[in-house]
Amino acid sequence: MNTNNKQSIIEPKTLAGFMELLPSRQILFNRIVDEVRSSYESFGFLPLDTPALEYSSVLFAKAGDEVEKQVYRFTKGDTDMALRFDLTVPLAKYVAKNYHNLAFPFRRYQIGKVYRGERPQKGRFREFYQADIDIIGDGSLSILCDAEIPAIIATVFKKLGFNDFSILLSNRKILQGFLSDLGLKEKRAAISTVLDKLKKIGLEKTEIELQKLGIKQKDIAKILSFIVKGLYLKDQVIESLENMKGGEEFKQGVQELKTVVNGIRAFGVSDDNFDIDLTIVRGLDYYTGTVFETFLTGHEDIGSVCSGGRYDNLAGLYIDKKLPGIGISIGLTRLFDKLENDFKLDSSAHTDILVVSLDDDKSVVLKSATALREQGIKALAYLEDTKLKNKFKYAEKLQIPFIAIIGETERANGTVTLKNLVTGEQREQIAIDEAVRIVES
Amino acid sequence: MNTNNKQSIIEPKTLAGFMELLPSRQILFNRIVDEVRSSYESFGFLPLDTPALEYSSVLFAKAGDEVEKQVYRFTKGDTDMALRFDLTVPLAKYVAKNYHNLAFPFRRYQIGKVYRGERPQKGRFREFYQADIDIIGDGSLSILCDAEIPAIIATVFKKLGFNDFSILLSNRKILQGFLSDLGLKEKRAAISTVLDKLKKIGLEKTEIELQKLGIKQKDIAKILSFIVKGLYLKDQVIESLENMKGGEEFKQGVQELKTVVNGIRAFGVSDDNFDIDLTIVRGLDYYTGTVFETFLTGHEDIGSVCSGGRYDNLAGLYIDKKLPGIGISIGLTRLFDKLENDFKLDSSAHTDILVVSLDDDKSVVLKSATALREQGIKALAYLEDTKLKNKFKYAEKLQIPFIAIIGETERANGTVTLKNLVTGEQREQIAIDEAVRIVES
Repeated sequence: MNTNNKQSIIEPKTLAGFMELLPSRQILFNRIVDEVRSSYESFGFLPLDTPALEYSSVLFAKAGDEVEKQVYRFTKGDTDMALRFDLTVPLAKYVAKNYHNLAFPFRRYQIGKVYRGERPQKGRFREFYQADIDIIGDGSLSILCDAEIPAIIATVFKKLGFNDFSILLSNRKILQGFLSDLGLKEKRAAISTVLDKLKKIGLEKTEIELQKLGIKQKDIAKILSFIVKGLYLKDQVIESLENMKGGEEFKQGVQELKTVVNGIRAFGVSDDNFDIDLTIVRGLDYYTGTVFETFLTGHEDIGSVCSGGRYDNLAGLYIDKKLPGIGISIGLTRLFDKLENDFKLDSSAHTDILVVSLDDDKSVVLKSATALREQGIKALAYLEDTKLKNKFKYAEKLQIPFIAIIGETERANGTVTLKNLVTGEQREQIAIDEAVRIVES
Repeated sequence: MNTNNKQSIIEPKTLAGFMELLPSRQILFNRIVDEVRSSYESFGFLPLDTPALEYSSVLFAKAGDEVEKQVYRFTKGDTDMALRFDLTVPLAKYVAKNYHNLAFPFRRYQIGKVYRGERPQKGRFREFYQADIDIIGDGSLSILCDAEIPAIIATVFKKLGFNDFSILLSNRKILQGFLSDLGLKEKRAAISTVLDKLKKIGLEKTEIELQKLGIKQKDIAKILSFIVKGLYLKDQVIESLENMKGGEEFKQGVQELKTVVNGIRAFGVSDDNFDIDLTIVRGLDYYTGTVFETFLTGHEDIGSVCSGGRYDNLAGLYIDKKLPGIGISIGLTRLFDKLENDFKLDSSAHTDILVVSLDDDKSVVLKSATALREQGIKALAYLEDTKLKNKFKYAEKLQIPFIAIIGETERANGTVTLKNLVTGEQREQIAIDEAVRIVES
């Protein structure tokens, strides 16, 4: 806003933990979002855009203390509301609210900002984009959906330029069944939470953590030896699991895992890109079957870049219907923050051409820019009075690959002189159509 | 999240004034956003995505009481913050903060949600999308940018399927100069606020409002007779303004208006789509030159769908630099709410084809869906066990135009039977390539 009176200057600062990019980085970020979106849409997912603010009663229907502490919650008038901390709770609300108007299986994607008021630290964001897909069934949902998810993950990461990655999967029923069969049913959740951290903290610390839970040394040995099975080839793992004795839950988990592995292959995902890993358990207790994590080769240190799994009932808090589903989430802001230089994406220019005049007469600059634009070229008309040198500098700063120069001659005969700023090549006095052809080629 | 214990159901409600769409409407809304974005990009605007939350000290550096009352403001830890109420204040902060890293003129677009905690009423939103562009100069900015803006507005609304619209423009210097010349300099702002409402409240009430400001009847007559000049043809208006006596500011305004009108024509905007209207003054006092409003023919009752103007200094509150600019804003949520059925947009399907099996063997469904997708077709693999009838119903509900059916024969010879659900046409046992050709045609 303008201010005519001289007054004290307010520092133009942005909140810590909120990503705000310069244009060239924003262009790259938007390309990432576009690729994720088109990948999701290619699998027939419908778009959803729920509000960033929701009633606190809706958002915290289930959430634990930890989430509530991190959340931006406030009152306006009589209304207690908060900024969403993920896209799953709003989805559950949405599906319950619109149950009668949706076609099931309901397949939706949502790419949007979520908010967590954590203490800011390097690499942690308080506002960040999540890109989620979920498939929700009405009463039941085919186990083959669990096989489709890795196909989608593979499509997304290939589109983003990552060909080397591992989608690691397991089925929680297997470990849960195994633990129940050991007589540890009551401690399953606590044990899972410990095992979820295995890769981070290592075997030794995991052992200590399990001891703290009061698990007998003999059982600890069994659990650890069981869970590291996943280091073998996937078909061998399945075979070995099939040969194990086990209760109903265990057997069902093994059967599901086998079906999912075959399904993933049928969906065309290369065996190089997915594997069974029984150490994948996911901390959250709402997962009930298949669970996924995804690691980019050479970037394992940043952790899983895409995780999720199968749950029994999405929206039981809001509706008396059984709505099983499966979903995954990509934290785009963090992914971008960590791997900005590793994406291999469409490198076409954000703006194709800068149209400038040699002198102060800009009438033909306006006309030529319009003519280029009508043929699908992204054309920026340079309208300021300045030296030609500065116009070239502007194109360079904005990484615009072509410049069209209009002087007296070009104005008279309706042409432009076209310069490729990357190769230095110049074509004098060419027709607009010819310029379009060159820029497009 | 799942809940196994039966417990009381929480009502899955969405906050009043927050738009949340069913998928088919969301698809349309997203297409609108895509068209606006590609129009803005075709003119060489850079993308920007600032945080939805900002320091209150930054957001309310200038804002008046009215804005502060409407805003979602709260404290987290020691930090006083608020949700943005427009995209202009965040832009001002951004430009001041990144001044040394931006190339001027800085041309940016931003399409994002803004928040106003108004009392909810029909057609008023508390969370809504704005789609803004601004061009910011460093020290100065060519008057031809004011001519480029209508070219952009025209491009956007044509892309959205509206060919009949009027971009009405004026230049605040003209009215301000005229009022100063009448000796009413101190009352200029108050008079402008009244005149801004002229079309809404009519001439009679405007006269009463001006009387309340203590303006003499003689001057009221002069003001009203002056301002309705804009009902004539634009070249006549300019000629008549040029023939009037007036001070420096008045003359400068007339000169600028003339340059802008010629520039708009040079940018290829049809004379049918823009006009001078001296009743356009815009209420906000930061506009200092050209001002715009846009009306869709037949939908004048919804008011201006795209407004904006020229300002002298964007970021004076945050930086000691003169940064003149020009900008416009489209309220997309309101536009969609009012005109949902009037957009004429790309009607291609969100999902091209549903791939189903005649029986329970779905292995080839997965393979075929992948093969279609690899050729650029948006293919949804139907994985549930249900009657064929229900699979067709699903395609209809989602408005998917094609269905590929795979039975025993198709599975054996690697074909699909393709049915066009719009025309009813069916092709039996055709190769995937042939199916791709038909879906794409």
